Amino acid sequence: MWNETIDAHRRSVREAILDSAWTLATEHGVLSVTMTQVAERAGIGRATLYKYFPDVEAILAAQHQRHVDSHLARLIEIRDQHTKADQRLRSAVEHYANICHHRAQHGTEELAALLHRGHQVDHAQQHLATLFEELIADAAAAGHLRNDVAPAELTTYCLHALGAAGNLRAQAAVKRLVAVTLDGLGFSPSSAH
Amino acid sequence: MWNETIDAHRRSVREAILDSAWTLATEHGVLSVTMTQVAERAGIGRATLYKYFPDVEAILAAQHQRHVDSHLARLIEIRDQHTKADQRLRSAVEHYANICHHRAQHGTEELAALLHRGHQVDHAQQHLATLFEELIADAAAAGHLRNDVAPAELTTYCLHALGAAGNLRAQAAVKRLVAVTLDGLGFSPSSAH
Repeated sequence: MWNETIDAHRRSVREAILDSAWTLATEHGVLSVTMTQVAERAGIGRATLYKYFPDVEAILAAQHQRHVDSHLARLIEIRDQHTKADQRLRSAVEHYANICHHRAQHGTEELAALLHRGHQVDHAQQHLATLFEELIADAAAAGHLRNDVAPAELTTYCLHALGAAGNLRAQAAVKRLVAVTLDGLGFSPSSAH
Repeated sequence: MWNETIDAHRRSVREAILDSAWTLATEHGVLSVTMTQVAERAGIGRATLYKYFPDVEAILAAQHQRHVDSHLARLIEIRDQHTKADQRLRSAVEHYANICHHRAQHGTEELAALLHRGHQVDHAQQHLATLFEELIADAAAAGHLRNDVAPAELTTYCLHALGAAGNLRAQAAVKRLVAVTLDGLGFSPSSAH
């Protein structure tokens, strides 16, 4: 009982730290966030903060990881709602375009780039690429995609192209981006719809 | 004569500052660069450095601007080597893919993202988008591209998709990416080649 209470407490402090650092980064820019500001905003002492994280970059990396993990979980759910390779790929592509569309408003993309620059290994981002590569390889094997370019390269293309959704305002534009990107993949679904 | 000498001196100090900050950012990560380190590496005093730039972010922004300006100048040269809309677009797309391929090794992309996060206005990047949008609009008007998506949206797609070149190792893969991206644009050149 007691251990559970401590665990719950630690989790909630951790959440508060991640949320605080993220809010500060969004409001004032990543470069300006300090450990003192994070502690203050999270309502804890600096000494406590250092028991959780060594520096701002580690906090932002953890925050980013939390984001990507949740996106990944949702993508897996969506994939598993379909059984056909073409439907699976299309659903995942549409969902990822929407993620990119929304996250641009929260600056997650830029933060991800910064963390990569800082040589943080981003396992969840790698999982995302692996998930898409499997979907693309399956769709290619079922004859729904061009076969002159390997699935790994098509995956890199696809994820970058969908990233353009971050620069688009209208939801209709995101749908058009999905269509354009799928055309690049040579996507031909089995039943016209 | 005297003024020219002073100008030349100022330019060379400025270049040394930009190069030093960039090297430090590449070696140790953008977040760790300090004004003291930049001054030391550039071989000038801190007081002198502050006469040129107010902070590290301003130095990195100027360095980034220098990069993008040179890419832009080269793209305009390449465009002007051709007269037909389809050839112009194809050449520019190929060249930009190569820029993305090379700059990934230098971390420029990540820095650009960071600077955007910091709300730096990146005029040269905007010029790049404008240049591509003109090429795409011209090629579309000449019937070489799909006409169900506006040139502005196709430009956003195109620049993002080509950014995937940064994740590709082989030059042959970059060529395939160009082909895939052009297929997304519905590119059909006038003379088959």
